[in-house]
Amino acid sequence: MLITNEIISNFLQTRIATEEICAPLTQEDYVVQPIENVSPPKWHLGHTTWFFEEFILKQYNPDYKEFDSQFSYIFNSYYESVGDKILRTDRGNLTRPSVEEVYKYRDYVTNCLSEFLDDNLTEEISSLVTIGIHHEKQHQELLFTDIKYILGNNPLLPHYSETFEENLIEKQKSKWIKIPEGTYEIGHATNDFCFDNELGKHKVFLHNYKISNKLITNEEYLEFINDGGYNNFNFWHAEGWDWIRANTIKAPLYWHKIDNEWHQYTFKGLKPINLEAPITHVSYYEAFAYAEWRGLRLPTEFEWEVAQDYFDWGKRWEWTESAYLPYPYYKKAAGALGEYNGKFMVNQKVLRGGSVVTSKDHTRYTYRNFFHPHLRWQFTGIRLAKR
Amino acid sequence: MLITNEIISNFLQTRIATEEICAPLTQEDYVVQPIENVSPPKWHLGHTTWFFEEFILKQYNPDYKEFDSQFSYIFNSYYESVGDKILRTDRGNLTRPSVEEVYKYRDYVTNCLSEFLDDNLTEEISSLVTIGIHHEKQHQELLFTDIKYILGNNPLLPHYSETFEENLIEKQKSKWIKIPEGTYEIGHATNDFCFDNELGKHKVFLHNYKISNKLITNEEYLEFINDGGYNNFNFWHAEGWDWIRANTIKAPLYWHKIDNEWHQYTFKGLKPINLEAPITHVSYYEAFAYAEWRGLRLPTEFEWEVAQDYFDWGKRWEWTESAYLPYPYYKKAAGALGEYNGKFMVNQKVLRGGSVVTSKDHTRYTYRNFFHPHLRWQFTGIRLAKR
Amino acid sequence: MLITNEIISNFLQTRIATEEICAPLTQEDYVVQPIENVSPPKWHLGHTTWFFEEFILKQYNPDYKEFDSQFSYIFNSYYESVGDKILRTDRGNLTRPSVEEVYKYRDYVTNCLSEFLDDNLTEEISSLVTIGIHHEKQHQELLFTDIKYILGNNPLLPHYSETFEENLIEKQKSKWIKIPEGTYEIGHATNDFCFDNELGKHKVFLHNYKISNKLITNEEYLEFINDGGYNNFNFWHAEGWDWIRANTIKAPLYWHKIDNEWHQYTFKGLKPINLEAPITHVSYYEAFAYAEWRGLRLPTEFEWEVAQDYFDWGKRWEWTESAYLPYPYYKKAAGALGEYNGKFMVNQKVLRGGSVVTSKDHTRYTYRNFFHPHLRWQFTGIRLAKR
Amino acid sequence: MLITNEIISNFLQTRIATEEICAPLTQEDYVVQPIENVSPPKWHLGHTTWFFEEFILKQYNPDYKEFDSQFSYIFNSYYESVGDKILRTDRGNLTRPSVEEVYKYRDYVTNCLSEFLDDNLTEEISSLVTIGIHHEKQHQELLFTDIKYILGNNPLLPHYSETFEENLIEKQKSKWIKIPEGTYEIGHATNDFCFDNELGKHKVFLHNYKISNKLITNEEYLEFINDGGYNNFNFWHAEGWDWIRANTIKAPLYWHKIDNEWHQYTFKGLKPINLEAPITHVSYYEAFAYAEWRGLRLPTEFEWEVAQDYFDWGKRWEWTESAYLPYPYYKKAAGALGEYNGKFMVNQKVLRGGSVVTSKDHTRYTYRNFFHPHLRWQFTGIRLAKR
Repeated sequence: MLITNEIISNFLQTRIATEEICAPLTQEDYVVQPIENVSPPKWHLGHTTWFFEEFILKQYNPDYKEFDSQFSYIFNSYYESVGDKILRTDRGNLTRPSVEEVYKYRDYVTNCLSEFLDDNLTEEISSLVTIGIHHEKQHQELLFTDIKYILGNNPLLPHYSETFEENLIEKQKSKWIKIPEGTYEIGHATNDFCFDNELGKHKVFLHNYKISNKLITNEEYLEFINDGGYNNFNFWHAEGWDWIRANTIKAPLYWHKIDNEWHQYTFKGLKPINLEAPITHVSYYEAFAYAEWRGLRLPTEFEWEVAQDYFDWGKRWEWTESAYLPYPYYKKAAGALGEYNGKFMVNQKVLRGGSVVTSKDHTRYTYRNFFHPHLRWQFTGIRLAKR
Repeated sequence: MLITNEIISNFLQTRIATEEICAPLTQEDYVVQPIENVSPPKWHLGHTTWFFEEFILKQYNPDYKEFDSQFSYIFNSYYESVGDKILRTDRGNLTRPSVEEVYKYRDYVTNCLSEFLDDNLTEEISSLVTIGIHHEKQHQELLFTDIKYILGNNPLLPHYSETFEENLIEKQKSKWIKIPEGTYEIGHATNDFCFDNELGKHKVFLHNYKISNKLITNEEYLEFINDGGYNNFNFWHAEGWDWIRANTIKAPLYWHKIDNEWHQYTFKGLKPINLEAPITHVSYYEAFAYAEWRGLRLPTEFEWEVAQDYFDWGKRWEWTESAYLPYPYYKKAAGALGEYNGKFMVNQKVLRGGSVVTSKDHTRYTYRNFFHPHLRWQFTGIRLAKR
Repeated sequence: MLITNEIISNFLQTRIATEEICAPLTQEDYVVQPIENVSPPKWHLGHTTWFFEEFILKQYNPDYKEFDSQFSYIFNSYYESVGDKILRTDRGNLTRPSVEEVYKYRDYVTNCLSEFLDDNLTEEISSLVTIGIHHEKQHQELLFTDIKYILGNNPLLPHYSETFEENLIEKQKSKWIKIPEGTYEIGHATNDFCFDNELGKHKVFLHNYKISNKLITNEEYLEFINDGGYNNFNFWHAEGWDWIRANTIKAPLYWHKIDNEWHQYTFKGLKPINLEAPITHVSYYEAFAYAEWRGLRLPTEFEWEVAQDYFDWGKRWEWTESAYLPYPYYKKAAGALGEYNGKFMVNQKVLRGGSVVTSKDHTRYTYRNFFHPHLRWQFTGIRLAKR
Repeated sequence: MLITNEIISNFLQTRIATEEICAPLTQEDYVVQPIENVSPPKWHLGHTTWFFEEFILKQYNPDYKEFDSQFSYIFNSYYESVGDKILRTDRGNLTRPSVEEVYKYRDYVTNCLSEFLDDNLTEEISSLVTIGIHHEKQHQELLFTDIKYILGNNPLLPHYSETFEENLIEKQKSKWIKIPEGTYEIGHATNDFCFDNELGKHKVFLHNYKISNKLITNEEYLEFINDGGYNNFNFWHAEGWDWIRANTIKAPLYWHKIDNEWHQYTFKGLKPINLEAPITHVSYYEAFAYAEWRGLRLPTEFEWEVAQDYFDWGKRWEWTESAYLPYPYYKKAAGALGEYNGKFMVNQKVLRGGSVVTSKDHTRYTYRNFFHPHLRWQFTGIRLAKR
């Protein structure tokens, strides 16, 4: 548990960091929702604020005066416990409250909460603030990926930044890390913050396996494309094959072939593919198909967690073969916060690691990220394993 | 044909009027497209500008330097002749060009064109400018109705104006106007501007009929609702019945029942229904069902045109029983402008008159407006007829 | 009004004729519904029977014992007045009642009704029997076209008959029939049977026009295909263009290109296209696009009716430019039979004439057939007109 | 490996058993496909035959004369390797080949194969025949469940049999079986037949757990319904909650509330719910929600496999919490048979056990059945576990 000063400063820094991510945006960029999974930046700003207001200020501060009673309806995400919420697909039609108003809402709640915390930081409240901070850090990452989608699907392909380097090259030589069979411990066990889905340290038996010390590069993935990987059903799950055909998918997201050369939309605009950089913005279906084509496989999340000490990670979320399921001792949190993780534990795959846009101090080696297998607007990459 | 000064001043006034409609908007209001038929205000601003640039400046001014070569792709609407256009449903995801940039684009084209016209106003160009002006006036009306939709579907129900009165009460006593049977002339025949779909003066035989001098009021329509009109299939077309059930339609658009009293969202915000005001925001299906319930019918567009001298009109677009079809001597214009009307002449109904948000000097008694029968975001009303 | 013997014999012949259409079917052919518009033959057999049972026997014969009380639910089509009906798209999943059972139901109702009519043929009942006969004749035509669809979309392309010739060649030389402008009378005016949508003789003013004495042939239509007619948006309605692209339509229904030669599925199986035969199985969108390509147009239903004496018709339903709308004196019939026509008078086009599978004595020159503009499983053809 | 006589007799018995399942059907029952997952019985008959023809006779018997070269196209299911197949949703529109023809096809292939096997039963062929037999046994189970769906969704609710008892009551008292923590072996390890997804005996570490010796009964499940289980989002996955609301699900499949009493459609027709019988026809979402409501959970497939010796099973397929994933040593079979299992290993849940309609000698304790979480037309039930 952090001491008061530390937690308040952490809270304030997190609030500022969120706003810094949005600094390059025009007013208009804040509003739209081009696909269901991409929320308007304005909504992220409001929703992370609502979280602190709803779960702390309104519960613990009897003197708290709500900023606007309608905002709960607008900025709730998926917490059924808290009341009506607007349909998710309607988020992108909300022109009011304005961006300016949302920033006022942010300031108001940030100030109210930091004042309140000065005198009222019980352990219970501290724990809620910590959750709220991590919740906001998750949305910081989503802000990055949603902004990239909004700009990267605009025909003008505007730049987000001239300096943000998203392609972090791994210099090491590729080699296999061997892990011997045995019973290993899995899950979060320190006093540091974690989400409920990581809890319940438990044992998993792993057979001998090897895992690569390096992510798959664009160059390696291009060989798969050039070898007709997207045209050969043998490498694909039946549902993956249907998905690439229904959506005429022939390359990772943000890839464009111009004058017969592959380019990639990045935060710095459209650039020729960097062959040495790790592949990114692939779906699980593509990651799996690539592995099949290589005659190899993706690691399980347990294999990843056990071996993670032997390689660098954090550049790309790494698809695992594991489905997102509860750990043996999983208990969902009480109340609305219990909706955070458990109710999504079906039809999704686990990703491990972290990415170039994951907030500092947010991820850890026990962290379990999860997405549907067809999604690829996150910075997702491929690490291979084998027996 | 207007003389030079007149046409330039008309052009400039039209450009200003468009921008005045948008004056009450926040930056964010310009961007979204909540349903396919409602375009973002920013898009209307750009598209009406593109029309002058594409069809006049780029064709007739060899010195013209395009503002931005990508805007053609962004601001084309449905002109297949002019090249690729973005998918209509994607208009609402275009955060760039920014509102500011679009206004710059407007200013640039407005200035270039008015300078160009000073010395080059041939009859051919004059006729294109006139079309462009009327095209922009059509979009002025759409701006009003699209803005109403954007604000009226926001949970905060923001006001557009504190003074704009959209409910224009008709004071006259209701009575039937009798028109004797005979052959009547239909269509536009003066030298004034009109669209190609009004042209080809021709004869239509009409049997004796009576047409009301007054639009149906909210009070009259409420009786239909209260009598279970929305629950009795006998009054509805099969497709209308399917439509109200699939969309759980129980009242006109923008009607809300609050504490057992009907309210209506207006440009001035949410207000109790004004019983004396004409009903508005009904679909053709509802207009037809209402007439059936009354044992009466909607007039045809020919009956309307012949009788229009005997009543006031222009408060509401009036659904007619006529399908939108070519007149006997219809010829579609050459080139891209030929796509203006003809290709929509199937599956739509004709509306006559004009509405409270129709631009001045834009409508006339031969004007043929047309919409699909289920649409109701326009200011649409009901006038009845009988034998 | 027919006298008793005549009407009973007419009734019995109609019942037999329906069953003869189904004679070449296997038991399995009776059951399926490959698209929403194509009903299972078994359903047609039951539904035409239910019509006599529901509207005559159950209403007028107090001693009548219903064959099976659940059949009303199964064999109602679109009569909302008569109670619950199964969803239209579920008709093709009804394996019970069996074909045999449905034939028993037919025999039972045929016998009950013919016995009942012997002693009870009032004018009112006679009129209902006549409607029932014509209703069944309509379904005889649908049986033909639905059977063609069921067989013609089976990969085995089974034959329906070795002798049924559906391609009736017109031998006459093509020429234009000139009709002078004037006021003409339209609509049904004799005492013979007709549907309510033909009634109300009334006047229509027609301007000078010319109409072809001959339907468009396969050869003529092939020129349109070979000239890229399906690839040029200029010839198409916007909705027609969307339709051909969404469904990758490149030729009329039942056309197959095999080894670079066009073939057509017919009741006699797959055959090379007969160039001299009239084109058939085209949608209104295709008929319109063909006319546009020729620089001509489709006639209105009024032009067709006025000129019909000067050409042969009845080989193909002919698309007209007219929308399906009520005549000036249209009154829908009372009760459930009022649902026969009126409620479909929106979004459909009128077809005139009759086809090679229209039952004898069923069509007439005032007959108004109607279908949605994209449908083409009927025997539909093209006749052109011009000023 | 079975000796020749044994395998041929096994083959012949399997072929007969399939046909016996279909004995109560009318000709029409064989044809329809009411939902995508339910195939027409005729298709099952053809497809299981095609399997033997395609993978054995056509590969190994150079003298084999194909029954009909078009059948491969019609009766392929999902084997992309073998060529074009008709769209799955079109299976239900295939009225030809007729049922009679399909039975001839069956007899032809059965005879050809049994003759061929007399002299050519190599180990390789024997292994393929064995796969074919098990493949056909899988389809025997699907025949039962698909027939139940076809009849159970017919408004006449016809009986399949007067004697087939699908509700097998468990008489034992409910109690918890305790399994101590440790490393357990999982997977198929004998020489008997199994599918590739069971192979690769491997170790799994399990923590202490308890598993019920008894399936949940209708009575227990009714308490969940009566307690509002279908109206409380807390018990449901987010996707499960969306699913029950989109489909207005309020009870298991085949349950009907009549005069305030719950009934269930069974092979013997509509019957009042038997309170003592195990619940069946629930989706994974419902099984999970029920467990949540009880404060308990579903077992993993490994917990089930380790404990299975201590309880009876085989009455109902039992949903597990496990996602369908490859075992550590999973290798998909070479060639087309490799498409049997591996390509479905995403987005599905594992079911263990077997059901009242599973063919004799077909299931075993290592058998991994798998379905999407919303499906419930199989005989699926609930067994609970806890720490």
